[in-house]
Amino acid sequence: MNMYRTHTCGELTLKNLGETVTLSGWVQKSRDLGGMTFIDMRDRYGITQLTFNTDDDEQLRELARDLGREYVIQVKGTVIERSNKNLNIPTGEIEIKVEELKVLNAAKTPPFTIENESDGGEELRMKYRYLDIRRNPVKNNLIMRHKVAQEIRRYLDQENFLEVETPVLIKSTPEGARDFVVPSRVHPGEFYALPQSPQTFKQLLMVSGIDKYFQIVKCFRDEDLRADRQPEFTQVDCEMSFVEQSDIINTFEGLTKHLFKNVKGITLEDFPTMPYADAMKYYGSDKPDIRFDMRFVELNEVVKGHGFPVFDNAELVVGINAKGCAKYTRKQLDKLTSFVKRPQVGATGLVYARVNEDGTVKSSVDKFYSQEALEQWKEAFKGESGDLLLVMAGPSDEVRKQLCELRLEVGNIEGLRDPSHYAPLWVVDFPLLEWDSESERFHAMHHPFTSPKSEDIPLLDTEPEKVRANAYDLVINGVEVGGGSIRIHDKELQSLMFKHLGFTPEEAQNQFGFLMEAFTYGAPPHGGIALGFDRLVSIFAGIDSIRDVIAFPKNNAGKDVMINAPASIDQSQLEELSLKTTN
Amino acid sequence: MNMYRTHTCGELTLKNLGETVTLSGWVQKSRDLGGMTFIDMRDRYGITQLTFNTDDDEQLRELARDLGREYVIQVKGTVIERSNKNLNIPTGEIEIKVEELKVLNAAKTPPFTIENESDGGEELRMKYRYLDIRRNPVKNNLIMRHKVAQEIRRYLDQENFLEVETPVLIKSTPEGARDFVVPSRVHPGEFYALPQSPQTFKQLLMVSGIDKYFQIVKCFRDEDLRADRQPEFTQVDCEMSFVEQSDIINTFEGLTKHLFKNVKGITLEDFPTMPYADAMKYYGSDKPDIRFDMRFVELNEVVKGHGFPVFDNAELVVGINAKGCAKYTRKQLDKLTSFVKRPQVGATGLVYARVNEDGTVKSSVDKFYSQEALEQWKEAFKGESGDLLLVMAGPSDEVRKQLCELRLEVGNIEGLRDPSHYAPLWVVDFPLLEWDSESERFHAMHHPFTSPKSEDIPLLDTEPEKVRANAYDLVINGVEVGGGSIRIHDKELQSLMFKHLGFTPEEAQNQFGFLMEAFTYGAPPHGGIALGFDRLVSIFAGIDSIRDVIAFPKNNAGKDVMINAPASIDQSQLEELSLKTTN
Repeated sequence: MNMYRTHTCGELTLKNLGETVTLSGWVQKSRDLGGMTFIDMRDRYGITQLTFNTDDDEQLRELARDLGREYVIQVKGTVIERSNKNLNIPTGEIEIKVEELKVLNAAKTPPFTIENESDGGEELRMKYRYLDIRRNPVKNNLIMRHKVAQEIRRYLDQENFLEVETPVLIKSTPEGARDFVVPSRVHPGEFYALPQSPQTFKQLLMVSGIDKYFQIVKCFRDEDLRADRQPEFTQVDCEMSFVEQSDIINTFEGLTKHLFKNVKGITLEDFPTMPYADAMKYYGSDKPDIRFDMRFVELNEVVKGHGFPVFDNAELVVGINAKGCAKYTRKQLDKLTSFVKRPQVGATGLVYARVNEDGTVKSSVDKFYSQEALEQWKEAFKGESGDLLLVMAGPSDEVRKQLCELRLEVGNIEGLRDPSHYAPLWVVDFPLLEWDSESERFHAMHHPFTSPKSEDIPLLDTEPEKVRANAYDLVINGVEVGGGSIRIHDKELQSLMFKHLGFTPEEAQNQFGFLMEAFTYGAPPHGGIALGFDRLVSIFAGIDSIRDVIAFPKNNAGKDVMINAPASIDQSQLEELSLKTTN
Repeated sequence: MNMYRTHTCGELTLKNLGETVTLSGWVQKSRDLGGMTFIDMRDRYGITQLTFNTDDDEQLRELARDLGREYVIQVKGTVIERSNKNLNIPTGEIEIKVEELKVLNAAKTPPFTIENESDGGEELRMKYRYLDIRRNPVKNNLIMRHKVAQEIRRYLDQENFLEVETPVLIKSTPEGARDFVVPSRVHPGEFYALPQSPQTFKQLLMVSGIDKYFQIVKCFRDEDLRADRQPEFTQVDCEMSFVEQSDIINTFEGLTKHLFKNVKGITLEDFPTMPYADAMKYYGSDKPDIRFDMRFVELNEVVKGHGFPVFDNAELVVGINAKGCAKYTRKQLDKLTSFVKRPQVGATGLVYARVNEDGTVKSSVDKFYSQEALEQWKEAFKGESGDLLLVMAGPSDEVRKQLCELRLEVGNIEGLRDPSHYAPLWVVDFPLLEWDSESERFHAMHHPFTSPKSEDIPLLDTEPEKVRANAYDLVINGVEVGGGSIRIHDKELQSLMFKHLGFTPEEAQNQFGFLMEAFTYGAPPHGGIALGFDRLVSIFAGIDSIRDVIAFPKNNAGKDVMINAPASIDQSQLEELSLKTTN
């Protein structure tokens, strides 16, 4: 029997009336009322109210009055009914009439309040992360993370996947500019590297015959840090043999549904599939937020030739119909215009047109467009009374990205992006190659082992940018949760790919020879997917930042401000590693 | 529907007779018999026999004859009953009459045979580990590892533990000679370190109120490598708040029983508990193998004073009764003597005495001991006819270690160490401190946060070596599977401990200030345990080496000979890291 507690602070109810119980936890807060002291005692599971009465035991009450916030205490007492009930918490109908009180540990006053809404700034809470985790919002994210991880394993285990640990101390890849490296003491001058992903190892496992592999695994990327990037992050990494794209999509759609069902209690419909080309055309993004419609409408044929040079000279004129937004004031519209002109969006302007009550259209460019012309706009947008048509123009790729931002902003304003509503989507048929203007050659959009659609292989010679890959992304609420591809397992096709990527046979051998050799010993057809686990959990938690779902995150500069890492190390340690710093 | 297979190679039986099936897998072997070709086709799940008949389709049979070992193929055919049944495998009563055959990928002849007993040496199999994993013994170890991991999580999840990921990029500890470090590019001259264990973080999680934490986590130690050590290894790391030693022992005994039950189908009795002092006295080891008894018998009072200088001058004379081993030949006894004289054991000699059929005793030192004296030996050993008494002498600590080796060797010879028989044991009451003759001071045997038994605290000033800790090890079959302790959560006791460990307050602050500060904000009583996951799995698999239960292990020199890591890196990469190598 546990000496410290018979129950947690989250479980006692009217059913336990009259029981003698022992609880341990932290002093959340304390109130004096006449001859009584009330203490809210907290642990991971909840809060239970303790009462101390001068009439019963004056000494005990005095001891209780001296307790500070966050003291660790142990009490023994009787469960009694509360006169002043709090029906918002499970334990709110009872309290503990305390008979014994023991201070297990005193506490200094914490540097910020341990409440759902804390008074501590982010930097301070990062420094004292071990106190921040005491707060419900942070603690609940960690509990959510635990649940999602367990359910992922439960599902994949049932589906016969094997969790295989791949090594963390591996070899730096030739394109390894973003690898963290680890000097070897035993082999001076040599380095291990930390994996950016277990890609090579999971493909080797397929060669090994482990036909269904997964791992929830830490990966590492030494990037110049941006907001919401972490140098170490967690991936749900998977690979399957003897599969086509549809097999992987089915399996991981099944996983995603299982998670929503078992973690959130939400039953999801089958996920729609959208070709990459449509995603770009109708949403200006390879990760469209389809919680709301508001698709792009292309207007070149409608708007050109009316003497409005901005439209006439633009490669693409494209807009969205903000349903029911004709009521926006001039001020609101100016704000939208400023929004698209911000450097982060980078548009030059915004044209708008309101569909009036009487069906007529009033635009910001009436000077160039007659009512008849505007009637055509209305038709193109399927506009109805009360709608607001928002139109932008420019080079196709740029204007699509800009309009995508505007669409999301209108979605925000209109409350169409409810974080508790989930709209998953498979984006498929990604281009195999993308043009890199710096090196003036095509690069693999995903990685060089991604297979092209067999029907598109002839295009490799003629229109390589049109070749589609067997590559797919899982998108939820406009966030890329994961992606993967069917790999090339055929030597001839792989050589062809390397040729088109501009590798000489020697370069290909140097950079990928090891994996290519493994493939000569009987590689099965295979493919896989990797889900960003931090990102996935943040979506389940309904929050934007992955930092909030990581127990001990680094800040935007890649620093752990709690333990103060990275830091300099002893000269003797450097010497042992045969290293000198040159900074 | 999967296009590559309707079934695996491990599931078809007589129940499927007449069904048309599609299978994919590897060619295990091929035999020609008259007009027939038989192919054993293998996947992760088993082996299925394929038949090709010239009478049915000559072209198809020719194609089948050309298949080499380890080719990846896909076949479509009908399940028929086998005339020549193999009842050793689940699929041995059927075969597939093949109608379609497709070569999915050719394969070079592998450098060793993919059979349970391979002809490949260890070095070769390490280099082609991805082929070695195709072999059942290696593959089955990975499956076992997966099962153990899933069951650990299932049990701890049910017990309300939260799996929390702690960071991999942390800070080098002051005693961090064994830390791997990771240079930071963004912060030149600064380094992260890889954790040897998440010790600090799990204690912080207790301060955070996460009262039950676990993690199956990679840890790293840059040691000069010895046999069966890996620079990266996996730990089942756990910590609990509001617990005493018995709570932790109960929980993790429960976990161990759950694993044996659910992974091996073995129901274990309650584990015995043995004080460290007894383990050393009766088994000469803090991790006794109690699958067999053969306890040490101390003989100083029996053997001294008979003029045999080796015994008279020894600090300790101690022996074991090898039941029923009087039958050992002279040659066998000479071999045992050579065994204890090996440098790895280091004894100077071995005295033996046989208990004869008639109850008399015949010893190798009859010159010094009369039959009456030997009768006393017999009594001390509770010797019976047919027993062999083995006796050694020397300084207490050394002779105990030597006799421990002899005991295990006799256990091996006598078949008393059956790897399929499991004898778990808790060793408790470890000494808090151990004398370090090099630095001439006491060191913490476990770590400086380990709590002493409260009743032993007064001994800290007088006989510090006698102070026992709230520390415990889980031992199975003579192998330390894990260990832990109840930590100090009280500031005064911690200061006292640092004093006795020879730290000035400044030194203590420098080295442990961060954790000590965290402890001032309300640290609960807590303790934990860490199990060596690789070791645990090796015990379940009944094998000696942890390397055999790791998918991609390093060799004894810390090298991954498959990917050739560690390796040198580009000069440009070093420059980006502000580093120079000095070797």
